[in-house]
Amino acid sequence: MATTLKTKEDTDQTAPANQPAEVRFRMRITKGETIALGPGKVSLLEAVRKHGSISAAARSLDMSYRRAWLLIDELNRSLKSPATISEQGGQSGGGCVLTPVGESIVRLYREVEHQAEAACAQQIASLTDLLKP
Amino acid sequence: MATTLKTKEDTDQTAPANQPAEVRFRMRITKGETIALGPGKVSLLEAVRKHGSISAAARSLDMSYRRAWLLIDELNRSLKSPATISEQGGQSGGGCVLTPVGESIVRLYREVEHQAEAACAQQIASLTDLLKP
Repeated sequence: MATTLKTKEDTDQTAPANQPAEVRFRMRITKGETIALGPGKVSLLEAVRKHGSISAAARSLDMSYRRAWLLIDELNRSLKSPATISEQGGQSGGGCVLTPVGESIVRLYREVEHQAEAACAQQIASLTDLLKP
Repeated sequence: MATTLKTKEDTDQTAPANQPAEVRFRMRITKGETIALGPGKVSLLEAVRKHGSISAAARSLDMSYRRAWLLIDELNRSLKSPATISEQGGQSGGGCVLTPVGESIVRLYREVEHQAEAACAQQIASLTDLLKP
């Protein structure tokens, strides 16, 4: 076995133990090659709701304005009716608010995460029981 | 708005439409900074079961042998009892089979995906209904 693998073993042995297991569900709805809806877009919608603009939302997520704008644009294009409304503004765009569709997406997506975890509680308990404490 | 953004718009308009929406659940169980169990490790276990060695499993997933070995090693270290048993072999290691623990992990993880989707059918239908056909 290569030395690098042994080095990795040593590193792992110093990792902190006895941390509680955390379970995280991620749902993605794809259409062809495009991820129409996933955790990134939902977090971005929540940040837009909180901060009132795409630029402030992008900053809060440590994301470039361009990437945030493209994600919102891709999301809105995939929807029958847009999830956000942008007001005209300065260089980085003006304010941006969620539409009722945007609010529904956030609510339904977060419901899915909670409900999935509740529905699978038994299997999750069996899986975490296989892990070292 | 920057020209690059407009170019992206043009690209999107030529994307194929009328593709069916597909829903994919991913569950991760983390302990501290480490992903103890997630879709990558479960797919790797399934490939090991199918191909009978870590090297063949890695090839089938277009993954380096080193990365596959490290993932299996990380998984086995996080478990009370290992998910795989390796036989001594040649340069790239010998054969590798799943233990009953490894079989349970695959079964429980795939059950979770199916059960989560079934439990959230209503919200998933509401979300996909917001998408363009």
